[in-house]
Amino acid sequence: MHLVPILGHMPGSHCTKDIQKNITSAAQPTSSPATTGFTELQPLMAHLDLPSEHMEANDPVQPAGATTLQRAWARFLKGVSYFSGDMAAFGKWMEKQFILLQLLDWVLRGAAQVMFVNNPLSGLIIFAGLILQNYWWALNGFVGTLSATISALILQQNRGAIAAGLYGYNGILVGLLMAVFSSAGDWYWWLLLPNIFMSMMCPVVSSALASINSRWDLPVFTLPFNILVCLHMVATGHYNPYFPQVLIQPRSQMPNITWAEVNVAKLFKSIPVGIGQVYGCDNPWTGGIFIISLFISSPITCVHAVLGSAAGMVSGLALAAPFGDIYFGLWGYNSVLACIAIGGMFYALTWQVHLLAITCAFFCAYLSSAISNIMSRFGLPACTWPFCLSALTFLLLTTGTNRIFKLPLAKVTYPEKNLVQSPENKYNWPRRVMLLETRQFVREEVRKQAILADPTCKVLLLVYPGQIKERGTDD
Amino acid sequence: MHLVPILGHMPGSHCTKDIQKNITSAAQPTSSPATTGFTELQPLMAHLDLPSEHMEANDPVQPAGATTLQRAWARFLKGVSYFSGDMAAFGKWMEKQFILLQLLDWVLRGAAQVMFVNNPLSGLIIFAGLILQNYWWALNGFVGTLSATISALILQQNRGAIAAGLYGYNGILVGLLMAVFSSAGDWYWWLLLPNIFMSMMCPVVSSALASINSRWDLPVFTLPFNILVCLHMVATGHYNPYFPQVLIQPRSQMPNITWAEVNVAKLFKSIPVGIGQVYGCDNPWTGGIFIISLFISSPITCVHAVLGSAAGMVSGLALAAPFGDIYFGLWGYNSVLACIAIGGMFYALTWQVHLLAITCAFFCAYLSSAISNIMSRFGLPACTWPFCLSALTFLLLTTGTNRIFKLPLAKVTYPEKNLVQSPENKYNWPRRVMLLETRQFVREEVRKQAILADPTCKVLLLVYPGQIKERGTDD
Amino acid sequence: MHLVPILGHMPGSHCTKDIQKNITSAAQPTSSPATTGFTELQPLMAHLDLPSEHMEANDPVQPAGATTLQRAWARFLKGVSYFSGDMAAFGKWMEKQFILLQLLDWVLRGAAQVMFVNNPLSGLIIFAGLILQNYWWALNGFVGTLSATISALILQQNRGAIAAGLYGYNGILVGLLMAVFSSAGDWYWWLLLPNIFMSMMCPVVSSALASINSRWDLPVFTLPFNILVCLHMVATGHYNPYFPQVLIQPRSQMPNITWAEVNVAKLFKSIPVGIGQVYGCDNPWTGGIFIISLFISSPITCVHAVLGSAAGMVSGLALAAPFGDIYFGLWGYNSVLACIAIGGMFYALTWQVHLLAITCAFFCAYLSSAISNIMSRFGLPACTWPFCLSALTFLLLTTGTNRIFKLPLAKVTYPEKNLVQSPENKYNWPRRVMLLETRQFVREEVRKQAILADPTCKVLLLVYPGQIKERGTDD
Repeated sequence: MHLVPILGHMPGSHCTKDIQKNITSAAQPTSSPATTGFTELQPLMAHLDLPSEHMEANDPVQPAGATTLQRAWARFLKGVSYFSGDMAAFGKWMEKQFILLQLLDWVLRGAAQVMFVNNPLSGLIIFAGLILQNYWWALNGFVGTLSATISALILQQNRGAIAAGLYGYNGILVGLLMAVFSSAGDWYWWLLLPNIFMSMMCPVVSSALASINSRWDLPVFTLPFNILVCLHMVATGHYNPYFPQVLIQPRSQMPNITWAEVNVAKLFKSIPVGIGQVYGCDNPWTGGIFIISLFISSPITCVHAVLGSAAGMVSGLALAAPFGDIYFGLWGYNSVLACIAIGGMFYALTWQVHLLAITCAFFCAYLSSAISNIMSRFGLPACTWPFCLSALTFLLLTTGTNRIFKLPLAKVTYPEKNLVQSPENKYNWPRRVMLLETRQFVREEVRKQAILADPTCKVLLLVYPGQIKERGTDD
Repeated sequence: MHLVPILGHMPGSHCTKDIQKNITSAAQPTSSPATTGFTELQPLMAHLDLPSEHMEANDPVQPAGATTLQRAWARFLKGVSYFSGDMAAFGKWMEKQFILLQLLDWVLRGAAQVMFVNNPLSGLIIFAGLILQNYWWALNGFVGTLSATISALILQQNRGAIAAGLYGYNGILVGLLMAVFSSAGDWYWWLLLPNIFMSMMCPVVSSALASINSRWDLPVFTLPFNILVCLHMVATGHYNPYFPQVLIQPRSQMPNITWAEVNVAKLFKSIPVGIGQVYGCDNPWTGGIFIISLFISSPITCVHAVLGSAAGMVSGLALAAPFGDIYFGLWGYNSVLACIAIGGMFYALTWQVHLLAITCAFFCAYLSSAISNIMSRFGLPACTWPFCLSALTFLLLTTGTNRIFKLPLAKVTYPEKNLVQSPENKYNWPRRVMLLETRQFVREEVRKQAILADPTCKVLLLVYPGQIKERGTDD
Repeated sequence: MHLVPILGHMPGSHCTKDIQKNITSAAQPTSSPATTGFTELQPLMAHLDLPSEHMEANDPVQPAGATTLQRAWARFLKGVSYFSGDMAAFGKWMEKQFILLQLLDWVLRGAAQVMFVNNPLSGLIIFAGLILQNYWWALNGFVGTLSATISALILQQNRGAIAAGLYGYNGILVGLLMAVFSSAGDWYWWLLLPNIFMSMMCPVVSSALASINSRWDLPVFTLPFNILVCLHMVATGHYNPYFPQVLIQPRSQMPNITWAEVNVAKLFKSIPVGIGQVYGCDNPWTGGIFIISLFISSPITCVHAVLGSAAGMVSGLALAAPFGDIYFGLWGYNSVLACIAIGGMFYALTWQVHLLAITCAFFCAYLSSAISNIMSRFGLPACTWPFCLSALTFLLLTTGTNRIFKLPLAKVTYPEKNLVQSPENKYNWPRRVMLLETRQFVREEVRKQAILADPTCKVLLLVYPGQIKERGTDD
């Protein structure tokens, strides 16, 4: 149910009918709004100045006289909004710039999109983290992102998707991980050849998979990266004279696990390391930098990344994984991604979704162990297959409750904004934390969205695709 | 195409039109007959009891004077109908009972649904068979079914599907087989932890797979069980200190097959053992008990189960399998399930479908050998992957003949009832065996379904959901 | 259906509406244009012969006086057309012949359909090539094709598809490759049993896969063959007393690659050998014969086959494959098929599509190396999995350009004819080569298709579904 009319004053029944018609025609795709029962209540709430006023009236935190502080806070939020979220204003400004500058923006957004973050500043910080880890890897990542983005331009893919970095994130992973898993050592320049070829194949595989997944309104996640890196690694293998891969072998004996030996500090450090391992980095500082980059764009994403990494670490302990693997972050990175994806990114965040995300993180860690055991038989790493498979499974889930609401793929932006788009949720999420930020977004939305005002009726009708808002304006 | 009007005499065109309109509106959706509009007509035809009258008139087998015997037989059948088939009356009665009692009903139905049987009595007998085999396994199976059913309730899955045991059957298999393949020995209580976790994931995976398979109107079969048990086994493996699995290794040398050594008695015993292996049981008595439980609900299912097991055994001999594997029922259980699924369960039974089911059983045995060879490389058993893949392949088959009629998934109940729903078949199936039973069902159907009779036109119209019959009565 | 009414000018808006309605109704269904309403207008435009007139007028290559030569050339082309392309006239004639003769036609077309060629003469030549290679293999191939075709008849599959050999090509591959990979030696007659069983399963698997792939309008390619041969091989394996398979083992040490040892003659010979390996043949003469059979039906197919084989060979060198494998054609055959499929068969040929086909050939060779490494772990050959997966990926690609135009599956015939069906392309392809042939087809199309011309307005309108062209003729 994503249809919550915030209904306004309606003096004449004649105009109501017209509006009703408008609503129906606009809301048609969704699931039959039961607006009929609300009409008699509407006059009672006519005097309220609605979304913000109404929310403040209901808000127990907000003291009535604190308007100065609130205004300062709003100004601060406005400042923050320029570089948080998806930096839409910056993206708008970029559209009129020189193409190479745009390309840089797309590459940076692509780098951050690995974590579902559409933010060039986050991308820049992530590149900083990569450089801290290893120059050669960072170079390969950059080349990969660039090749993938250019290839998408050549293949005339959707410009909006390219600009959001949706064709770059597989490229950066292909570039990075091909460098990480190459056993030819750093600065082996020949590696750039398959790197560029595979990165340029990313948009092809992405587009092909999107043709399939779109039937279920699912994203492709990092499947193109998984496919292409595994393809390169298994096509060449450890015993290749030109492009040798690191030797990965299956476990064939009982690991020696002594609980006395466990190092709690390293266990805690494995949480940022797990986040770093999303990009194949084992440096905890790099992981820390990535956490910051997530926080800038979306605190919800950041929280779920940390929770996911912790869930993965706990699963590793429960399934008797060698401590070395856990410290190295191998149990964390898939759960990080799965937890972000489910926790607010593709589902609108509620408590139920939050619990679902944690469950998914544990399931993903289990799957991660299974897949890495299977892949190791072929000398392959698990890549992010576990994340893709577990997140797709949880996104395919259908339930009878409207507290677990999957956003239409076209409406997905970032958790905080997704919250607004799903009216069910914003009344249930802890209000102290979210209210102000939410209100800010609502105001923006109001400005951006189609506004339908009938001056004679003094009724304002906002038509969202899949969501209707209606309120009185002048009284 | 299952809309075959058997048109009767129609003197006036005006009433035909009205009826036609009614048919269209009634036949449009599937499972909810629009009975509302028809109720005023029903008193008019109360004295007729037409369907049975008509069928007797057409029946060449039935001598005219045998009504006493026939009535006794009908009374016996009525008695049988209370605990055969899907025990719909019992299910109806259960709806008003205490929730824990309902839950028990769902768990029992879930236990039987592994064999596509929606019958709590069969489920009870199956649990008896499991207890005969091994207490610990039976306990794990029960815990698995219960967890899966509760998880489905939490996730607010379709209540009708839960009540039919469709969320339980993967749970019982997960529970049982995790116990069977654990090498930690019986009564290793820690095993209940992953058992409960994996069983509770069943509805998630079921729901996700159903989202995919429903596009082709296909069931999910035991795919969730296959995925989750393989996941658990490969995630832990043989060399796991907490949850070790039995060691399964690929064949690496020529097996020694001497036909003189073959034990014909054991070969025959492998048929019930094969049926028992559906639940991982190698006790022939357990298998025999399962056969009884199938017979109670549906003789057709029972016959196909035995035929499938035999086909699997023969395939094993043909493909030079070690005799031990054949005696142990490993060649049978997939063919059992495949033969049941194709032979009358998802296709309406005809001779052609019967042959198709046998073919599928052989194909499934072939596939079973292939998959167990591949899975053994990863230390995994074949589970019921071969059944799932072969049955899905045969259900995806499209042919030009209407003698191979795939029932819409929503109409699938059990083979005998499916027969009635497919008008093509019931006139061709050996009538002596099926007629009485069929008639019983038709009577029930007539009572349940919308009946439209226009006495002025002397036309009787039976409206099945998705099937229309119309015929003259008095001339 | 995308070549439909060539519409005339519309002076009054009233007639525009009518025509518009006609267009909509004609273009709406798929393959049957509503020609009935247009016939009365055709006499009016009999003198125009517009399409060809127009093309000549626009053609800069064609000198005005060369009509005699042109007519001779046209007569030659007409002669060629009887046995080139899909031999539609011959197929038409065959329909009235004795069923066994028809069956032979279908079997021959099936043999050629492996290379996407629907031509019995090509099929005959291919069988000649197979006999040159190995009598026993050729016999198995024939038995396989026959069994598959008969099985399709029994299962009442689409008669048109059977007549085009679309149920035979998987059969020939199953038959051939089961003989090629059997280690029981030639003339081991028992092999015919699984051969016939597996070939008869081909239509089942084809039909099932088509149910899935048709959702994306994709062909099943040789997936049924891949599935069934791998199934047979892995179900029996190397250590089977009845049906032993050749031993295939994974590479486990660094190959010794010395560039000084490379044999350039053998490298060049690997191109026809690669084409021969599509049917599992390593005789270069057999490969040469196959090239001829391709050329007869479609020169474009032939060119792409050679290019694909060359691309595969180059990829093998680039990825440090052992020279023996390259000489043996193992790097070529998948790229051959992928290059044919993309280069003009399922996409209408343009320069962009040509480049895409070459890219796909390289990608396919990469994939081929990866898949053969994985399959060798299970003792399996790569079969044509790499071709299927890469071609499906490239066919699922969606781009913003209409220069890469995927033909609807129902309209696919052969590259030269596909060209005509895609109006975008025929103006851009090197005109000297294609024009005459194209014109021939356009004339045929014009005769076949519904033509609507309004002579009073002197405007010709070509309506393609999804694209409208309108131009004045005499002014």
